[in-house]
Amino acid sequence: MNDVSIIGLGQTEVKEMWETSIRHLAWYAIEAALDDAHISKVDALFVGNMAAGQLSNQMHLGALVADFAGLRGIEAVTVEAADASGGAALRQGILAVKSGLVETALVVGVEKMTDQVGSSATAVLASTLDADYEAIHGLTVAGMGALLMRRYMHEYGVTVDDFANFSVNAHANGTNNPLAMYRNRLKADRFGSAPQVATPVSLFDMAPSGDGAAAVIITRHERALDMVPQPVRFAGSALATDTLALHDRKNVLHLRAAELSAQRAMQAANVSHDDIDLFELHDSFTVMAALSLEAAGFAAPGQGWQLARDEEIGRDGRIPISTFGGLKARGNPGGATGMYQIVEVARQLRGQAGDNQIADAKIGMAQNLGGSGATAVTHVLRTDS
Amino acid sequence: MNDVSIIGLGQTEVKEMWETSIRHLAWYAIEAALDDAHISKVDALFVGNMAAGQLSNQMHLGALVADFAGLRGIEAVTVEAADASGGAALRQGILAVKSGLVETALVVGVEKMTDQVGSSATAVLASTLDADYEAIHGLTVAGMGALLMRRYMHEYGVTVDDFANFSVNAHANGTNNPLAMYRNRLKADRFGSAPQVATPVSLFDMAPSGDGAAAVIITRHERALDMVPQPVRFAGSALATDTLALHDRKNVLHLRAAELSAQRAMQAANVSHDDIDLFELHDSFTVMAALSLEAAGFAAPGQGWQLARDEEIGRDGRIPISTFGGLKARGNPGGATGMYQIVEVARQLRGQAGDNQIADAKIGMAQNLGGSGATAVTHVLRTDS
Repeated sequence: MNDVSIIGLGQTEVKEMWETSIRHLAWYAIEAALDDAHISKVDALFVGNMAAGQLSNQMHLGALVADFAGLRGIEAVTVEAADASGGAALRQGILAVKSGLVETALVVGVEKMTDQVGSSATAVLASTLDADYEAIHGLTVAGMGALLMRRYMHEYGVTVDDFANFSVNAHANGTNNPLAMYRNRLKADRFGSAPQVATPVSLFDMAPSGDGAAAVIITRHERALDMVPQPVRFAGSALATDTLALHDRKNVLHLRAAELSAQRAMQAANVSHDDIDLFELHDSFTVMAALSLEAAGFAAPGQGWQLARDEEIGRDGRIPISTFGGLKARGNPGGATGMYQIVEVARQLRGQAGDNQIADAKIGMAQNLGGSGATAVTHVLRTDS
Repeated sequence: MNDVSIIGLGQTEVKEMWETSIRHLAWYAIEAALDDAHISKVDALFVGNMAAGQLSNQMHLGALVADFAGLRGIEAVTVEAADASGGAALRQGILAVKSGLVETALVVGVEKMTDQVGSSATAVLASTLDADYEAIHGLTVAGMGALLMRRYMHEYGVTVDDFANFSVNAHANGTNNPLAMYRNRLKADRFGSAPQVATPVSLFDMAPSGDGAAAVIITRHERALDMVPQPVRFAGSALATDTLALHDRKNVLHLRAAELSAQRAMQAANVSHDDIDLFELHDSFTVMAALSLEAAGFAAPGQGWQLARDEEIGRDGRIPISTFGGLKARGNPGGATGMYQIVEVARQLRGQAGDNQIADAKIGMAQNLGGSGATAVTHVLRTDS
């Protein structure tokens, strides 16, 4: 399906933006994307957002953002799939362009995690899990991460320190990203003494929530070729799901939806693992990075952590990940995260990644997860130039 | 775009279902739709839902409902556009089938308005309006309806009683719908003394919130012809938006998004007003019924109410509306409402409307509105049989 391409990219800094409303956040990213594409109009808007209704008492972001961004009247909806909302919105945009009924689509992921005028973020994030069987018993997202990490350590005989290089790598890359929430380096030897969030998950394992928005503008590839010098194509796109509750899965260390969507996207793109120059994965927790590498087939079950240990996830490694800091250092703005991943892969393929540029990057993959991996959206992007 | 058709329909009763969880509600409608289509699998699920995150502390309904309905693993997302979420989800399903990447799509609208374990329904519904400029000042959805009704009465010199026949007609049709929330008749002469909600809006003007779910299964028309005796085709589909806030509109009595989406859907379907045998409109308030008839071009501005007065909206009238009770009598389950409208039009075109059957119905239109009309989704359906 080599026929939908990116013609514009935009993103905001990720941080706590107490003075910025969600509509402004979305607009900043959209304005940058429209400027990048040198256009002022689109036919449809897909907003990826997780929790504006709960956190900001504002649903109906499709129409709201369209109007505020100067696009009053256009087709616009919100797409929600927990923290996979950004990737899920992109998938809808691609389907829309492929349908022939929408020529140019704008996809923006946006989340305002500070200013919790509605409910508290911890409670809201727990509603991405199974409300009736997990959250009601007190499970939080951090607790979910702890269950997975503990099980991983038990099952594969690894220690907390064995996860350290995921965060060390992410933060090292974050230092070169002016939009990243954290631009400090982490030291592997300080990992064991980091403040605990939900043991064994520490502050060094868990990605920080932040405010942010990222946008892309897409259209048919033939049209894109006439509009911009370097259209980046979607060679594969797939969305798969799994049970919300961990206890409903045969093996909690097997991210089935991540595996399915990666397989389908790679098959559609006709690429193998060796072809992929970088992989923006969903490192909401260090253990999720390990599990994602395994589910996507870059490592055997139980061996994802070894790619971090062996420094194969760095810029010059076998499979570079988190090249702009990942969720861990760039920050995790919920429903916007999946769109940051796409913008980051596209910048790598355009050769615009600055000090973090992967040499000669032609094919990149992005995978956005929701909840404990109940939704997984995988996109394979490529450039011909 | 005569190439996407309905092969299965399902719906639940609309009422307060205190003992039923949102996943059960969705499943009941899906099970009925799968049975109706005589299939057990689909490729993708689109869930139209407005407020499960806020009301039930459960977001991530796409994956949740897919799993609970026995469809674990399939592509699934939630689509939100306030109370137009049902129609908006259908629009995504149609785009998906048109794209060629999804063969069979299931679209379910579901809303659980009772069991408000999260926030109160009045506050949640207000978040479909502009949170920062309307809701924060205390505007509720009922208040919004009152502003519109008052302005309509002032501008066009009509009285509360002039709206009565919208509800009288809806309730008369509701008496024959075993799934309707209210199956009692209303008397026009009791209209003026009805309990006030937000003057001039009374209990007789405003549609009641209820729990419910409605689903359709769609696929390419050529395929549908091989699967079911009476596929109902989508001849036109359009979604348009407007400002969330009433004060941002030049004329609050002009539902611009409703007009745009009706024009586009009718143009795509190549039908004129005379061709349309019934119109399931968004009668969340009697004034919204009048404004919808005007925006869709069935009446001139200020004259929509006359269609009710002259009994042109009944089964034998010029443009039958609310043929199963409409939002007013069937009940308004938020993000499910748009899918009830589609199921109802399809049942009319299949000749399955029982005592409320519109004779020889071939072409029907459904229009689902969000908030104060900031989102409008219009579908034109037709049958060849």
